[in-house]
Formats: sequence, C-alpha cells, structure tokens
Amino acid sequence: MSGPPPIITLTTDFGLQDPYVAAMKGTILAINPAARLVDVSHAIRPQAIEQAVFVLAAAWPYFPPGAIHVVVVDPAVGSRRRALALRTAGSTFVGPDNGVLSAALSDDVRAAAGDLPAPVRLPAGCRAVSLTNERYFRSPVSSTFHGRDIFGPVVAHLSLGVPLEDLGDPVERIVALPPFRARRQPDGSLRGRVLHIDAFGNLITDVRVDDLPSRGAITEVAGRTVKGVSATYEPGPDLLAVTGSSGYLEIAAPGGSAAAVLKVGLGEAVVVRPA
Amino acid sequence: MSGPPPIITLTTDFGLQDPYVAAMKGTILAINPAARLVDVSHAIRPQAIEQAVFVLAAAWPYFPPGAIHVVVVDPAVGSRRRALALRTAGSTFVGPDNGVLSAALSDDVRAAAGDLPAPVRLPAGCRAVSLTNERYFRSPVSSTFHGRDIFGPVVAHLSLGVPLEDLGDPVERIVALPPFRARRQPDGSLRGRVLHIDAFGNLITDVRVDDLPSRGAITEVAGRTVKGVSATYEPGPDLLAVTGSSGYLEIAAPGGSAAAVLKVGLGEAVVVRPA
Amino acid sequence: MSGPPPIITLTTDFGLQDPYVAAMKGTILAINPAARLVDVSHAIRPQAIEQAVFVLAAAWPYFPPGAIHVVVVDPAVGSRRRALALRTAGSTFVGPDNGVLSAALSDDVRAAAGDLPAPVRLPAGCRAVSLTNERYFRSPVSSTFHGRDIFGPVVAHLSLGVPLEDLGDPVERIVALPPFRARRQPDGSLRGRVLHIDAFGNLITDVRVDDLPSRGAITEVAGRTVKGVSATYEPGPDLLAVTGSSGYLEIAAPGGSAAAVLKVGLGEAVVVRPA
Repeated sequence: MSGPPPIITLTTDFGLQDPYVAAMKGTILAINPAARLVDVSHAIRPQAIEQAVFVLAAAWPYFPPGAIHVVVVDPAVGSRRRALALRTAGSTFVGPDNGVLSAALSDDVRAAAGDLPAPVRLPAGCRAVSLTNERYFRSPVSSTFHGRDIFGPVVAHLSLGVPLEDLGDPVERIVALPPFRARRQPDGSLRGRVLHIDAFGNLITDVRVDDLPSRGAITEVAGRTVKGVSATYEPGPDLLAVTGSSGYLEIAAPGGSAAAVLKVGLGEAVVVRPA
Repeated sequence: MSGPPPIITLTTDFGLQDPYVAAMKGTILAINPAARLVDVSHAIRPQAIEQAVFVLAAAWPYFPPGAIHVVVVDPAVGSRRRALALRTAGSTFVGPDNGVLSAALSDDVRAAAGDLPAPVRLPAGCRAVSLTNERYFRSPVSSTFHGRDIFGPVVAHLSLGVPLEDLGDPVERIVALPPFRARRQPDGSLRGRVLHIDAFGNLITDVRVDDLPSRGAITEVAGRTVKGVSATYEPGPDLLAVTGSSGYLEIAAPGGSAAAVLKVGLGEAVVVRPA
Repeated sequence: MSGPPPIITLTTDFGLQDPYVAAMKGTILAINPAARLVDVSHAIRPQAIEQAVFVLAAAWPYFPPGAIHVVVVDPAVGSRRRALALRTAGSTFVGPDNGVLSAALSDDVRAAAGDLPAPVRLPAGCRAVSLTNERYFRSPVSSTFHGRDIFGPVVAHLSLGVPLEDLGDPVERIVALPPFRARRQPDGSLRGRVLHIDAFGNLITDVRVDDLPSRGAITEVAGRTVKGVSATYEPGPDLLAVTGSSGYLEIAAPGGSAAAVLKVGLGEAVVVRPA
C-alpha cells in the first residue's frame, strides 16, 4: 500500500488498568505492524452502549477518510448476537450488533428504530457483513473476549486491505438506537434529557442546537430555569445553556460543574421552551 | 533497519496525571524517533508488583515477535536492586529485578521460587544482563526516576539494535514470583485466591482453567457457592464461575460487578471442588 | 519531508471518557496523517493552568528537538483571550494565552510576571504569534472547542512545515505564571508550598533542589519536621524529604502516600531551614 498507514480507532469499556486493551492492540499489531492505533476512549461505563454511541459519533467524523473504527462494548459477548463490519462512504465500523454501530448512522436512518433499539435498514451507500469467516479470527476464539479474538483481528485484516465481503455474509439490517434528539411537543417545547456528562460536569442534552427556537429559548432542568442560550462558557450567571461543540445544547456552570451544582445524573429531564 | 518500526510496550504504576510517563516516552523518542510506543497500563496500583506481572503476562503474548516490553513498578528505585534486560525466544523484557519480569517466565520456571518471590535460574533459551553499562543511560541518572534515566534509554537503544550483551553483565538468576496457580489439596479441591479484579468487577482467580475438575466444579467464595462453570457472562444466576480469556477461572455477576455483589477484595480465598 | 515524522504532544484537561481528545487527534491526523501523537496528560484538573504548566515543563525537555507541544487548558475559551504559537530554540508550543505556555519559559523570564500571572517580554531567541490566520483553522470554529477547531489544526499545519509567521501576527509579550520557586527569607529559610501531588502521594514542593542549604536542611510541613534530605525513597523513617527527579524537593512516605499521612493538599506551606 502507498500513503500513510491506516488508522484504527478503538472505543471500549475495558478501562486502562487491565490487560484487555493491550491484548487487543497487540493482536492488531501482530497482524498489521504498520497500523496506527488511536484511542477514542476506553472509559465508556461498563456495558453503556448509549455512551459509546455518543462518544464515537462525536469523534469519528474528524478522522481522515479510510479510518477504521472498532467499538467493543459488548454485554452479550459469547451469545448469539452478531458481530458486524459496516462500511459507509468514507469509513469502516466494526463491533457487535447491539446498537453501538449507530454511531455511524444518521438520525434519519436511526429513526426507523422507533422508541427502542431495533434493527433498521441500512441506507444506500452503506454495506455491512456479519463476521462469520473464521479465517480472519484468532484461533481459538474465547467466548468472553471477542475484542481480542474477533474484532481486533478483523480490523487488522481490514487495514491490510481485505475486502469487506470476504469477512462474512451481507446483512441488510443492523440494530440501531433511536436518534439522540429531544421531541417537539404540541406546545412547541422540546422535551429531552441529559445524554452525557463530561469531565467538566457539563450536562450534554439531546436537544439539538439546530432545533432551538429561533427567537430565544428558556431551558428548564432540575427545577432551575435558564434564560437564553450562550455561545461560550464565559462567566456571568451561575448556570448557562450553551450551544455545545457537538451540536447539542449543554447546561454548564462556568468555572464549576453543572452536574454538581444541580445534583443531576444521566437521563435527567430537560425542557426547552420558546422565550 | 528494514521492516516496521520496533514496538516498545510500557507497563508502569505512574498514573496518567503526572509528567512521568511522558518524560519516559520523550526520552525513548529522543533516542529512537521511529520507535512505536504502546501503553499496556500505567494504572498498576502503586508498587503492586504482582498486578504488573498479571497484567503484562496477559498482554505481551499477543504482540508480534521482536517487541520490547518495559515494566517500571519499582518500589526500591535508587537502592541496590539490580536493573535487568531479559531476552526470550521472541521478546525482550526490561525492568527492575524485583519480580516484575516474572511476566516473561513460565509457571515451571517460576515454581523454583517456592512460596515467596526469590531468585530462580533462567531456562534454556533465555538470556539476561544486569544493566550496568552507563553508556546507555541518560546522564546524570536521578536516584528516583530510573524509568526516564535508565529503563527508557535502554529500551530505546535495544530498539535500535544494540545487542543485549552490550548493556551489562550476564546474570543467571532473576527474582521471580511464585506461579499464579491455586494448589491442589489432598481432598482433590483447589485452594486459591482472587488475583485481580477487573474494571467490570470480575474476580479473576488463580485457579487455572486447565486445572478444573473434568466432571464439573463447585466454586466457593465469600460464603457463596457457585455450581458449574460457564463459558460466557450470559444472564441467568446472579453469580457465575466463568472460564476467563486469560486461562483463569473468574467469578462474575452478569450485568454487574461481582466484587460489589460479594464485597470482596484482592486475596479473597477461593475453593473449587469437584462436583 | 525527510527524517522521522514530527512529534506532537498533547496536554489537556479533557479527561479520557469524552470524545474531546479523539476529536482533536482526528482533526490533526486528517491534516497530517504522518504526525506522531504522544499524550503528555489529559488528566489535568479542569482549568488548572498551574498543574498544566508543572506537568508539561517536567515532560517536554525530554522530547527530541522539533517536537510540537500543544496544551489546551482553556477556561476562557471563546472569549477575547489570545491563542498563541511560541517557538523556542528547539521546540514549538501552542495554546491559549492564559499562562499555560509558561511551561516553555525559564524562571528568569517568568520572574518578570511578579507575584501573579501577567504578560512578560519574550526572551531573545523566542518568537511568538497570535493565531489569527483563519486559513489554518477548521471551519466553522466553534466557540467552545478550540482544541479541535484552532489548536489542533494549527499544530497539524506546523507539523507539515507551515512557517510560524504564516499563522498570525507577531507578539512580544505573553502571559506567564511566576516561577515555581520558594522564596528565601531574611533568616535564610526557604518558604514555599506544595505545588503538585503525584499518583504515589508524593508532595512535590516549589523548593528547588539547587536552592537547598549546602550543609543540610530541616523541612517543616503540616506540623511535622523532617531532618535531612534523601536521595531515594528507601525505607526508614515514615517521612522523607527527597531530591525529586524534576529538580524540586519532595516530601515522601516510603511505601505509602505522604499526602494521606499528612492529610495535606495543594498549596500547603513548606519551610526549609538550614540544619
């Protein structure tokens, strides 16, 4: 191959104190020593599929075309859940078929899932296969660590140029999470929830900046009301609604943690009304 | 050199909030800018030699031949403890002579240590040297940070092709930990302990899957009894004994943390009896 | 370009559980796929400029000449604070103009700041520019994530060889923190403070080893008195004053955490008297 070595990003709930991430990386490098490994995060909460989707969806679009993104948050490892590789226009995604690959899909495609994770039809331009060709696995395959024994080897082979179709049988539907998007109510308000809490304590909501009322917004969360939407975290009031860098409305406490100030956790209800 | 750049893996108890890991990496890259650095873990508990051995032993076998593994968990840094480089059939290991290099040794070799960490004779095919050639150190060498001043520079030079023998004087014995292996009792049971607790709360015991009774097992831990051994973490009972991906029996709480459910820590006794 | 690929180090307060670090790395790699990314730390406490300076200053000198160091600890992101690139004899530093780039400056230069962070004149041999040339930014630039939209793209372009001067207008002064250096009192003692607490619980003070009394020292901290200064953490008394690997006096509890033993935090007063 010419050009720079292929990039493989990793998103897992393995943490960094165990041998799991390194065993997976070693396996990849043993197959393709030229692969460039970039961690997205290994601090996804154990088995938190939604967090994995949020984090990967906010990171992968910035990687160059051709990057391969493997995500291993896999509560049902060793069961009959499928393992998939999915190729979109510019990128390839590999992981279990439990919703984590939603990170690769648009809101429109995910909306077909309805209210709960469910299989959706892949859009035009997307191809996926079920990983069934054991030739591209480690041998033997453990029943509890497919990151090392299936997903790692598969992304390594993909990075060497193995065609997607060689990895297994085509699939037309994959499990997707519903879109992260607060719903507009009959009264014009948006009713959403806290989707993610970042290391600064910012509450990232599923209210999309694109959906905000054009004439100003009032945000209600945890019994507090925030008037207006700020572009930055600049000091002023103790609580701000901010247009976040990933396109979601955030609740922030300038210089502090909104999560601590409001004593709220994931899933907390958020309502945005026109001013 | 032809071929892909050499891989150097790092295992330390430095944590990631201090400058230590980066100072060590910078030192390596200043000597060999082409080296490929892969973190095994920097979250080994402070001075926890046994954890370092467990983690590295479960990770390094997956790296390609030729990889160099440096481990710096070094409570006696600056004392007279030796610093070593050890070469096996396919890999090189560098670290203090306090037992951490046990990760490179087989159970049979480690068994010569007896019940406590002790020097063991190196097996055929293994060579080791005491790192005494200061030409391959940073200068001056601090008395508290040999990761940056000795181990880092040495692995960088090894990755450039410096022969092992140039680094210092040959040694025939190195300190090893006893094998991680529950002992078989006169009544046929295996009496072991919790060796590691992973990020999921799985209790990884020193009961080797290879040693399990062939006709079924009953596992006792923290006053609880678990019948049978599962191949996966699939839901069902609240507590499972699982054949782990590193060859050890694990106690798992599907969808939760066995450590939290059982309120146990490292070293907790585990007994496995034939069913 | 000939030679090994350029090294870019990253120091942030982003943590590792969010998409921020990966989004920044993806952006860099999309511009320069050959860049070599090395994490210094992403565990700087939120908005802790002083910690960022301490950590980066203790790490970057070990990297090879030509390395580019980007630091994003940026409480005033989106405000009018400037963004800078600074080139010294051998290295390039990029970050907000809030004091974080002090890591690149000598104590002598930083002393001009006085008692509080303030603009200081750059020394001979240093050049800096204000990052104003939007051609080297992502477009559009968010108001809350300049790591991804300004600093990342700028370091990627620098690593491709873009001249510093193309990035914006020259500046002659940048904000610096006062030196980390305990002050000598009229009675000959040094009065300092705990500057950093590392993962081992060692208290790293701002007492410089070079400033220690030549005939022996007595250290007072948290009501305890430590006689003498040790070269290593070797066991003995429960509390040691140690000449640390970064040139600062440390208070250590061999085999334990001095921070826990003394129940002290950052900023705790430390006094060193001649013996």
